[in-house]
Amino acid sequence: MQDILDKIKTYETIIIHGHQRPDGDCYGSQFGLKDLITTSFPEKKVFVVGEKSNFVDFIGQLDTIEDHVYENALSIVVDTAVENRISDQRYKLGKEIIKIDHHIPVNDFGDIRWVDTTFPSCAQMITYFYQQNDKTLKLTRQGAIALYTGIVTDTGRFRYRGVSKLTHEMAGLLIGKGVDVEEIDALLSQDTLDTIALKGFVYSNFVTTPGGFIYVKMTRETINKYNVNDEEAAAVVNLLGGIDGFPVWALIIEYPGEIRIRLRSSGPNIDQLANRYGGGGHAKASGAKLETWDQLHAFVKDTEAVIREYRET
Amino acid sequence: MQDILDKIKTYETIIIHGHQRPDGDCYGSQFGLKDLITTSFPEKKVFVVGEKSNFVDFIGQLDTIEDHVYENALSIVVDTAVENRISDQRYKLGKEIIKIDHHIPVNDFGDIRWVDTTFPSCAQMITYFYQQNDKTLKLTRQGAIALYTGIVTDTGRFRYRGVSKLTHEMAGLLIGKGVDVEEIDALLSQDTLDTIALKGFVYSNFVTTPGGFIYVKMTRETINKYNVNDEEAAAVVNLLGGIDGFPVWALIIEYPGEIRIRLRSSGPNIDQLANRYGGGGHAKASGAKLETWDQLHAFVKDTEAVIREYRET
Repeated sequence: MQDILDKIKTYETIIIHGHQRPDGDCYGSQFGLKDLITTSFPEKKVFVVGEKSNFVDFIGQLDTIEDHVYENALSIVVDTAVENRISDQRYKLGKEIIKIDHHIPVNDFGDIRWVDTTFPSCAQMITYFYQQNDKTLKLTRQGAIALYTGIVTDTGRFRYRGVSKLTHEMAGLLIGKGVDVEEIDALLSQDTLDTIALKGFVYSNFVTTPGGFIYVKMTRETINKYNVNDEEAAAVVNLLGGIDGFPVWALIIEYPGEIRIRLRSSGPNIDQLANRYGGGGHAKASGAKLETWDQLHAFVKDTEAVIREYRET
Repeated sequence: MQDILDKIKTYETIIIHGHQRPDGDCYGSQFGLKDLITTSFPEKKVFVVGEKSNFVDFIGQLDTIEDHVYENALSIVVDTAVENRISDQRYKLGKEIIKIDHHIPVNDFGDIRWVDTTFPSCAQMITYFYQQNDKTLKLTRQGAIALYTGIVTDTGRFRYRGVSKLTHEMAGLLIGKGVDVEEIDALLSQDTLDTIALKGFVYSNFVTTPGGFIYVKMTRETINKYNVNDEEAAAVVNLLGGIDGFPVWALIIEYPGEIRIRLRSSGPNIDQLANRYGGGGHAKASGAKLETWDQLHAFVKDTEAVIREYRET
């Protein structure tokens, strides 16, 4: 961390990158870090570049910069493990590159790397960086809002296992800087009539199988009717989780040419099942594919077998 | 607080009461306090009495005691502002009574009272009591689970305005005692097929009005069909909150003889509107009544007027 602070002190121009399709933690880390630097060192020029996120637009507004700005500049990439997922590949134009991330490393890019997978969000790392250097660094309320939003979104509101004593300590520190927790919650919870109509569809059209599998099918017709994009589809699968008696659940979406399954579990590992159906992923969250709807019956039977085996052991 | 610790030290038998229809914070405070006392002073007899909660049953099991146990005993009532809502009115049989609560006081019962409305949960008070006396007091992991559950449930997972730096500090302290946050979250998130069918009903049958009001009607027939109890009805109203363009929302339930409205707002104050319809409550969360469904039209118009006035100012 001392290296990173030294580099920040050295450079006059600093450009902060995140990943493609940025989420709350990516935006929160980018804008939180920008706030830290500009508030502590007002003479420096700091830019946040990358893709726009409508979901967490309240955190801050992106900068548009020309290539020459990277001359003699420091690039900092936050919250990104995979090099080709860095949004705006011009980060390479920077004189030096710093990587700050909490994911398991995939590519070792960057001249200085601070990677710590014990942090449940990258925003918690930036907050910790601030706290450890609070004699030098300053943070405004808007910066605290950015970092708090990152912590809240990446931990599912303090619900995931990576949440530690330090997570709560950092959240408390940010609240102490003036974050209004109800305001942020309202901004993150905003639904539209379309989204709740979609929820109505899911809750009224799910299918349960005798073997403990619950799923919902989304045909092209349904997708068009409810105007579902990929991000919303990802959220929809969670609606069927945590239901008593159904340890495995799925959202099955018809795409042109193939049928994709978003598979989730609170019990058995389902990654090997997903492997058998042209997919893969994590033990409790995987993706799989069907060629046609005719294969669904076999997939259901195979899923039930996985559940049965889990229950018997 | 020192008074309370002294009294706990003095008595051999301590009986802990909560309120009727106990929630996570009530149970968490009762069982957390019991754990604190029995772990720190193993020779004392400590009982938790009152009503059973199925929702947070994992926190602990109630004790059944006879009247004579109250002889020379200390009664401690937690999380209860209204005297006649104390569950098991035998608390009065105790030699002395302590009240620990975070609600605005309604009745000043109790020989010693610790009431602090800046705490967003009573469990946070008990945790603070532990932290301030950590040279004397001990807490097990199960006690930490109880208190953490109380904090989480009464703050809606750290989302409500009362959440402070201290709230996160206390949550962090409990996680440090071994609470598994995902385990607790799974226990609190357990849905049943009935509940999700009910959600499907709400999301598929809500009514929106041009003036920004959104509501759902629940007739006796619907209630019987989905087997809705009061606790579930309370949860259902939240499903319609936070929808873009609809600052006021309601659940309208038909009871034998009257129609009750659970009214919520993220914009205008709705307590005066509720007063006009035989109810009242808080600025953003009130109850009201209709005699017959014929009155609904007028109620909708009045609600729209409140929204209009709010938007114009």
